[in-house]
Amino acid sequence: MLKTIGVVTPGGDAPGMNAAIRAVTRIAHSRKLQVLGFERGWDGLLTNTYKRLTPRTVGGIIQLGGTMLHTLRCPEFEKAEGVELAAETLELNEVNGLVVIGGDGSFRGALELGRESDTLMVGIPATIDNDVFGTDETVGFDTAVNTAVAAIDKIRDTAISHERVFIVEVMGRKRGFLALEVGIAIGAEVILIPERECKATQIVDVIRENAHKGKRAGIIVAAEGIGDTSKLAKAIAKKTGFEVRLSILGYAQRGGSPTARSRLLASLFAEKAVDLLCEEQGSSLVGLQNGTIASIDLKKSCETQKPLDLRLLKLAEMLAI
Amino acid sequence: MLKTIGVVTPGGDAPGMNAAIRAVTRIAHSRKLQVLGFERGWDGLLTNTYKRLTPRTVGGIIQLGGTMLHTLRCPEFEKAEGVELAAETLELNEVNGLVVIGGDGSFRGALELGRESDTLMVGIPATIDNDVFGTDETVGFDTAVNTAVAAIDKIRDTAISHERVFIVEVMGRKRGFLALEVGIAIGAEVILIPERECKATQIVDVIRENAHKGKRAGIIVAAEGIGDTSKLAKAIAKKTGFEVRLSILGYAQRGGSPTARSRLLASLFAEKAVDLLCEEQGSSLVGLQNGTIASIDLKKSCETQKPLDLRLLKLAEMLAI
Amino acid sequence: MLKTIGVVTPGGDAPGMNAAIRAVTRIAHSRKLQVLGFERGWDGLLTNTYKRLTPRTVGGIIQLGGTMLHTLRCPEFEKAEGVELAAETLELNEVNGLVVIGGDGSFRGALELGRESDTLMVGIPATIDNDVFGTDETVGFDTAVNTAVAAIDKIRDTAISHERVFIVEVMGRKRGFLALEVGIAIGAEVILIPERECKATQIVDVIRENAHKGKRAGIIVAAEGIGDTSKLAKAIAKKTGFEVRLSILGYAQRGGSPTARSRLLASLFAEKAVDLLCEEQGSSLVGLQNGTIASIDLKKSCETQKPLDLRLLKLAEMLAI
Amino acid sequence: MLKTIGVVTPGGDAPGMNAAIRAVTRIAHSRKLQVLGFERGWDGLLTNTYKRLTPRTVGGIIQLGGTMLHTLRCPEFEKAEGVELAAETLELNEVNGLVVIGGDGSFRGALELGRESDTLMVGIPATIDNDVFGTDETVGFDTAVNTAVAAIDKIRDTAISHERVFIVEVMGRKRGFLALEVGIAIGAEVILIPERECKATQIVDVIRENAHKGKRAGIIVAAEGIGDTSKLAKAIAKKTGFEVRLSILGYAQRGGSPTARSRLLASLFAEKAVDLLCEEQGSSLVGLQNGTIASIDLKKSCETQKPLDLRLLKLAEMLAI
Repeated sequence: MLKTIGVVTPGGDAPGMNAAIRAVTRIAHSRKLQVLGFERGWDGLLTNTYKRLTPRTVGGIIQLGGTMLHTLRCPEFEKAEGVELAAETLELNEVNGLVVIGGDGSFRGALELGRESDTLMVGIPATIDNDVFGTDETVGFDTAVNTAVAAIDKIRDTAISHERVFIVEVMGRKRGFLALEVGIAIGAEVILIPERECKATQIVDVIRENAHKGKRAGIIVAAEGIGDTSKLAKAIAKKTGFEVRLSILGYAQRGGSPTARSRLLASLFAEKAVDLLCEEQGSSLVGLQNGTIASIDLKKSCETQKPLDLRLLKLAEMLAI
Repeated sequence: MLKTIGVVTPGGDAPGMNAAIRAVTRIAHSRKLQVLGFERGWDGLLTNTYKRLTPRTVGGIIQLGGTMLHTLRCPEFEKAEGVELAAETLELNEVNGLVVIGGDGSFRGALELGRESDTLMVGIPATIDNDVFGTDETVGFDTAVNTAVAAIDKIRDTAISHERVFIVEVMGRKRGFLALEVGIAIGAEVILIPERECKATQIVDVIRENAHKGKRAGIIVAAEGIGDTSKLAKAIAKKTGFEVRLSILGYAQRGGSPTARSRLLASLFAEKAVDLLCEEQGSSLVGLQNGTIASIDLKKSCETQKPLDLRLLKLAEMLAI
Repeated sequence: MLKTIGVVTPGGDAPGMNAAIRAVTRIAHSRKLQVLGFERGWDGLLTNTYKRLTPRTVGGIIQLGGTMLHTLRCPEFEKAEGVELAAETLELNEVNGLVVIGGDGSFRGALELGRESDTLMVGIPATIDNDVFGTDETVGFDTAVNTAVAAIDKIRDTAISHERVFIVEVMGRKRGFLALEVGIAIGAEVILIPERECKATQIVDVIRENAHKGKRAGIIVAAEGIGDTSKLAKAIAKKTGFEVRLSILGYAQRGGSPTARSRLLASLFAEKAVDLLCEEQGSSLVGLQNGTIASIDLKKSCETQKPLDLRLLKLAEMLAI
Repeated sequence: MLKTIGVVTPGGDAPGMNAAIRAVTRIAHSRKLQVLGFERGWDGLLTNTYKRLTPRTVGGIIQLGGTMLHTLRCPEFEKAEGVELAAETLELNEVNGLVVIGGDGSFRGALELGRESDTLMVGIPATIDNDVFGTDETVGFDTAVNTAVAAIDKIRDTAISHERVFIVEVMGRKRGFLALEVGIAIGAEVILIPERECKATQIVDVIRENAHKGKRAGIIVAAEGIGDTSKLAKAIAKKTGFEVRLSILGYAQRGGSPTARSRLLASLFAEKAVDLLCEEQGSSLVGLQNGTIASIDLKKSCETQKPLDLRLLKLAEMLAI
């Protein structure tokens, strides 16, 4: 019977992780389960470092960015001995279920660990990249979108005052979820994402056309993963004769107090995660599917690429006329 | 054939209305339609006051709260002659479709007007109350939730420093959607909504129990519609012996720059609204249903009360232990 | 020789108090002094409840609102026996200097305590009211001004959309410092402060004149201390025939992450406070005087009313045309 | 006699410029002067492009970042013929006084223009760099400090969660005013400014010492002007073995809604500027000197380097223990 739950945040931090830790802890506690918070990601499982989490120790954290459990890259865990050692820690502490809060990398780790251990694994998707298959939205995504939007709303002041074109690079090494939503929300002239190639000449055409229409300022939102934005800025400047400025939003997108939505999603996911463990449905990923809290197989999530709705790109173009 | 679209915001303002007006205008324009923005709600239809909206005139407004078309209470429109006069204005300007952006009251007005006119009516739900049947979320709701959450995050500093109980009243004259999401997001000790009675004695029990658990500060989130919160604060203070403070968040919840989500929803709804008009599907309400942009019959929306998921209240209680 | 410093926050909380506690602790520590943080205001001195503060225990608090030392109303301290008991606690712990962070009430307490004790008293002005004589600005004031301004910037969206007059009540039971700066910063049509009477008829004249000029929306910023704003709103509505709405900003003005300026001022004041103690200049108040960090006699500060620059009101009027 | 005032923003934009334009316009208007707003900096003077500014046309802009008059680099103005042409435009429009809002570069332009023209020149210092001699603070500086602080408060979440060192580069090509205030306000471990060399080995020592004290995360705030921060990050990473991340805050620091202080300062400076013109005191710079609104000779301001108070750096070090 389920008695002890572990919680761990092994990957990059995302706003709302603390809200998820709090919710897992309190919901588990209300079901008479105890909760161990392993510290510094997988490293805490290798070194048996944890905090006993109680409703009081997770008080006052719902509004904090980052993760109170800390996180650390852990190369040892990538080897078989590391995974075995982690499995032993789970056994040692009689951890029946482990809630892994993070993204794809964290879930692949959980799958590995699940193979070596009887502990049930449940994932809560929390990453600003929103690139986890099986959920329409990850914890932290909404916060990162709003952080980027607020920054670009400021940049727009300068863009308009100076009548200049700005390229703003947002996070997203492989995927364009963040760039796409940010781009629509700030009314970008062009949105560049790894999922669809866009040649510099196309961008140049848009900028020239806009100038012709009287739109002298412009914002191009580019996902990190599209390549060298600095080169792109120079290329566009050269071809159009306009001044083009580049701003890379950087790490501020990863932190900050979570939005209401990130907190709510974290809480709903946590409830579902504890439910799944109580029902002994391990190797699962909690998710939002068509507006409903649901779950899918963790392995399937790791093996499947999340599709991006390219119709949004179409909409963005129409809105930029 | 559809040639001219009207847009109007007849009710209370909500953040994201401008994003919706911009999107309707630009999408319509890209389909070779012209757009008239009637000013000051129904009054603009009675007095034939409008702006011709073009892609340029709706530039630079996506991030602004309020409504650039203004709004006004219009008692004349509640009489048959008023509705007839508005219908004549639509005919005079050869308006084939009217996009009504607002809440229930605005949509009832649109139904009345639709009965007297050949103009197709499509509604875009935009109200911070989120109380429109047929959509999981209204434009502006996410912004209002975050505004209230940010304010209460500040109040919490004082609550904790002084170890006091605060009652925070959020908007919601009839429904508790806002209070419920805000309450979960700020980690409220108690959430009070019109949909479920909660006696002062129950609240007193929670406060006493919390004090016993070492939680000396507390936030009670109450929807406007639950009754006199000032009386409630006094009653609780009297019964517990604790200091209880009341803060009514007020009109700031209605304004402000829309969140990314409110802007995105506004844009998606606008696209669907223009689609519906192009397909000559009048008397419709655009909405978000299970994560998908959809539509329902406008009359049905007006006649049906939107259900509130009381399981969220249950979750909130579990999270407040 | 100075060896031990105490810190206490006996009054209402203000943003930046934590930054001040941190700075006092670290600066004192760098001078080989130890620091005791008395908890819950004077109550901590009556019950000998304190935390030993070290550079590490005050880490991660510079950005937090409220006070980590908590605060509590303490009627016992208003009696002679209470003050004596507090003095004994100081002696018992060999506290050579006490840094009192707060407003007028806190400083009067410090003076009382100073009469019964050999411990040197130094005050750091920290209150959102900015009503402490001897300093041009108090810690927390800048934050409260910006919080109110951000809220009213949102309310303006609704005011303009609905073309309505709003009265916004900001904190300030006795003084108008907050209302005055907020009023200028948001471009208020009228600013009402306790220091200068303004009749309802004068306000009515301004509103009518504005309507005549084409300014249909308007914001009146009123300090709490001017009387019943609800009555005022009704009176103006009656006389002008316009809709007038009231919004009381409330407790959110007291909390929140301190602005850069509140944090910087807290740090500079703390440095000066420790300096004064090291120089054995007790019974002093630290302050900003003509842009310079300085100090004055604590008693003089308590006995003198801080003047408010009424020329700012004149400027505000000119800016509201 | 003074009849017509011109306003121009020839350099980089800064938050609060619109508040200054509004205040100049309304104060001038209340003194029966008319106001011409020259567009796109000096270019507007070369091409005689201006808006007639009235109390109504500057309504609703106090809270907006950027400059409603736009700005543009104008190489023609750097030649003698350009300056003469601008002088002719002033004469043509009978502009008796010109209010130049900007930084050092703008004021040097004003001096040149003043030599060729009878129009009185008055400068209002508005730049996020705060590097103008003759004023303790420039319009926009406080806003930029707070924008940077808010961003770094977010980055700190990730720094602490990952226990990493972050270098955050803030604006300031030549001077460290921004970096210094931001550094103190966010509690930086190290602050790097052009005014004082700091070797990589010193930074390495601090980081090692901090790790020894248990401070594993750390923020280094660096002014743009200290050199290649990317190289520095790599050097530190190599020498300490720690992961070091770099974040360049970029253009968002230049925009955004001005803080209350930037708006107030803009209004006070504007009043003084119009006063000076009415008193026929041309070739002046308005400024804040020891907490008081004052003025100095514009030429002297341009020729003198503003000193930076290095005691603040000392304080920052003490606060970082």
